[in-house]
Amino acid sequence: MTLSSQPYKGTRDYFPEDKRTQNYIFNTWRNVVESFGYEEYGAPILEPIDIYAAKSGQELVNDQTYVFTDRGGRTVAIRPEMTPSISRMVAAKRQELAYPARLYSIANFMRYERPQRGREREFWQLNVDVFGVDEVTADIEIITISDKILKALGGKDGDYIIRINNRKFINFMMSQYLGLDEVQAQQMTKLFDRRNKITEQDFREQALLIFGDTTPSDERFEKITQLVTATTIDELPEELKKSTALEELRTVFEGLTKVGVTAVVFDASLMRGLDYYTGTVFEVFDTHPDNNRSLFGGGRYDGLVGLFGAEPISAVGVAPGNTMIENFLAVRGLIPEQKSLTKVYIVVIDDALGTANTVAAELRTAGINTEVDITSRKIDKKIKTASKKNIEYVLFVGANDTDTFSLKNLLSEQEQKLSVADIVARFA
Amino acid sequence: MTLSSQPYKGTRDYFPEDKRTQNYIFNTWRNVVESFGYEEYGAPILEPIDIYAAKSGQELVNDQTYVFTDRGGRTVAIRPEMTPSISRMVAAKRQELAYPARLYSIANFMRYERPQRGREREFWQLNVDVFGVDEVTADIEIITISDKILKALGGKDGDYIIRINNRKFINFMMSQYLGLDEVQAQQMTKLFDRRNKITEQDFREQALLIFGDTTPSDERFEKITQLVTATTIDELPEELKKSTALEELRTVFEGLTKVGVTAVVFDASLMRGLDYYTGTVFEVFDTHPDNNRSLFGGGRYDGLVGLFGAEPISAVGVAPGNTMIENFLAVRGLIPEQKSLTKVYIVVIDDALGTANTVAAELRTAGINTEVDITSRKIDKKIKTASKKNIEYVLFVGANDTDTFSLKNLLSEQEQKLSVADIVARFA
Repeated sequence: MTLSSQPYKGTRDYFPEDKRTQNYIFNTWRNVVESFGYEEYGAPILEPIDIYAAKSGQELVNDQTYVFTDRGGRTVAIRPEMTPSISRMVAAKRQELAYPARLYSIANFMRYERPQRGREREFWQLNVDVFGVDEVTADIEIITISDKILKALGGKDGDYIIRINNRKFINFMMSQYLGLDEVQAQQMTKLFDRRNKITEQDFREQALLIFGDTTPSDERFEKITQLVTATTIDELPEELKKSTALEELRTVFEGLTKVGVTAVVFDASLMRGLDYYTGTVFEVFDTHPDNNRSLFGGGRYDGLVGLFGAEPISAVGVAPGNTMIENFLAVRGLIPEQKSLTKVYIVVIDDALGTANTVAAELRTAGINTEVDITSRKIDKKIKTASKKNIEYVLFVGANDTDTFSLKNLLSEQEQKLSVADIVARFA
Repeated sequence: MTLSSQPYKGTRDYFPEDKRTQNYIFNTWRNVVESFGYEEYGAPILEPIDIYAAKSGQELVNDQTYVFTDRGGRTVAIRPEMTPSISRMVAAKRQELAYPARLYSIANFMRYERPQRGREREFWQLNVDVFGVDEVTADIEIITISDKILKALGGKDGDYIIRINNRKFINFMMSQYLGLDEVQAQQMTKLFDRRNKITEQDFREQALLIFGDTTPSDERFEKITQLVTATTIDELPEELKKSTALEELRTVFEGLTKVGVTAVVFDASLMRGLDYYTGTVFEVFDTHPDNNRSLFGGGRYDGLVGLFGAEPISAVGVAPGNTMIENFLAVRGLIPEQKSLTKVYIVVIDDALGTANTVAAELRTAGINTEVDITSRKIDKKIKTASKKNIEYVLFVGANDTDTFSLKNLLSEQEQKLSVADIVARFA
């Protein structure tokens, strides 16, 4: 029987070249969030299904989560997201943690989705969350970090736009302004969420269907149009300005201006799919014509920790994924060429492996990554391997070489006899 | 409904302190293998079950692997080990790769085992593999790296012993020396594998049962005793020295001596559980009385890549896991104290958040990880938070501070008025 050499459907193998790009993204994420004082944590890849069932939204749990029964009869899920896990962890150490608790992780997740560009069944996400801050200063910090991450990767202000809304404002808008009951409000939320995926005609028809028959249709739709076309709070209809949530939004926008985050816009139609959000919600959109889509998002979710039996504790977070970020970089040519981390490839001549190993050990001790060709192939084959691996320097070690060795730069073709000390100095 | 705040049975939450220790282990692994020229790759956490069914051994597949059917009807497994995945990947890129291909990964795995100390259902492993080297130079390199990893973590020669055997020698020993047929040989292999877990009396009785009734029992058992008590090849009975596999073992031991790996011993009873090994097998044992157990192991598996429809390609690998390594370090007090990566905690006084953010941005640009307390709590609460987080320096930023700010060392209690440039210089 021959086994398939292809990975499981919708997942991806990361060969060294791809992995270097992924590591570049991971390291940039890490540097940005650690510069803000966030500390890394880790959580299990399996969780009881209940922790998602509570607040993650039906689509994610019913259609996209990998759920199965373990050998002990427990219903478990491969985590489709991190927010419930970190909320569980914070609840477990509620008393011991120092607040504000700034926490981050870089981890793998699975969702059963139709594979498409920028969407894989296994993906990696940075999760950045701050716990224990009621003030919107936390919302501002999380959005600032989102902006800094794209900047640190080479993005510019025109490359993306951060759309911001607020769940409390959405509730006010649905009930007070549009006069919808709870069921209608939920339907309208879902419709707003799909707005960019359907035609304007369909949007209009479905919106009117939700309203039912109490007001003339033009007037009703006019109210929605006024909402969804506003890009600043000030453009909103007067009667919406009574909402106290609007003050919160205003403070967020003012705070972002002060710290120089300018690629932001108000969007009353931004809903975010997950049920656990309670305040600010935001989503970062790519503006590139070839990649015009949502990159990642986040928001405030003050109710989640409380579900785990602890006193409620406020939380704000964001979670960029690796594939979306890679697309963002790829369409702009922002993925840097990743060189080999190996500096020297030792080509052993005749039976000089003993000397080669000694030299290699000395170079490694000096911090120079050194590969020894341990095959018995011909010399030109060995040099070809170094070149195929994009290693810049080849060091020849022969049976008669004792104190100096020939170091060749494969790009410039220059060759020089050097002692180990000279080589160490060269790469210092 | 209250959800449990505990992780899924047998798994572990890594809070920042634990994660720092894990990262210390990961980074040490990474440095060692990259110094030998190994390049990082990544593979999916789910794989078709077939790739383990082929060669990973019945116990692992039938009892320990998390297997389930996905929403598309495919039988998939959460990877219990990496060797089949990386063999699959090498088969897929057989032509493109440069050989010797030196590959490594640090990834999470799951096995359904009874949770116990040093054994968790989710664990992390470093996988280090070299492909395309027929010579035992590869076996020597992989064992050398195993040794270097423990040394780099602070281990000393007496702390562990590397037991080495060879599958071809095992076959010779079973058939030629002990005169066992294939079924008997398999039973004997399993028995040898369990030797350290059962009494000597049980071992003897079960061994004789496998032999059946062809030779007097004392003579038969004497042959086994001679085998399992030998700690060097030279102590083996003469008739075993006809095995060509013994020459391979001898070359491995000589090679290890030359590169200074001395904590090695021959062990004819070392089997290694996995079915895919074809040559050298080895296992690293902790010698500490409180942690006297196998730490990790590896070996040569030349047949695995060929199962994926590619030409066979030789391979040698090793896979240390994080929990075993952590135990090895813990019993010796070798886990270094991991300090906070955050250097400065800014305590904002009154409404100086704007200035605080500006100062923080400047410090971050200079590479100093800086956390701003963005709550509206009292000053002493903010200082307490910094102290609880083990951050050494607190920087006070008040409404009247413009050019200089008070930097306080929480350990020495010394306080000094400094400009941002001074602070940057201090931490450079």
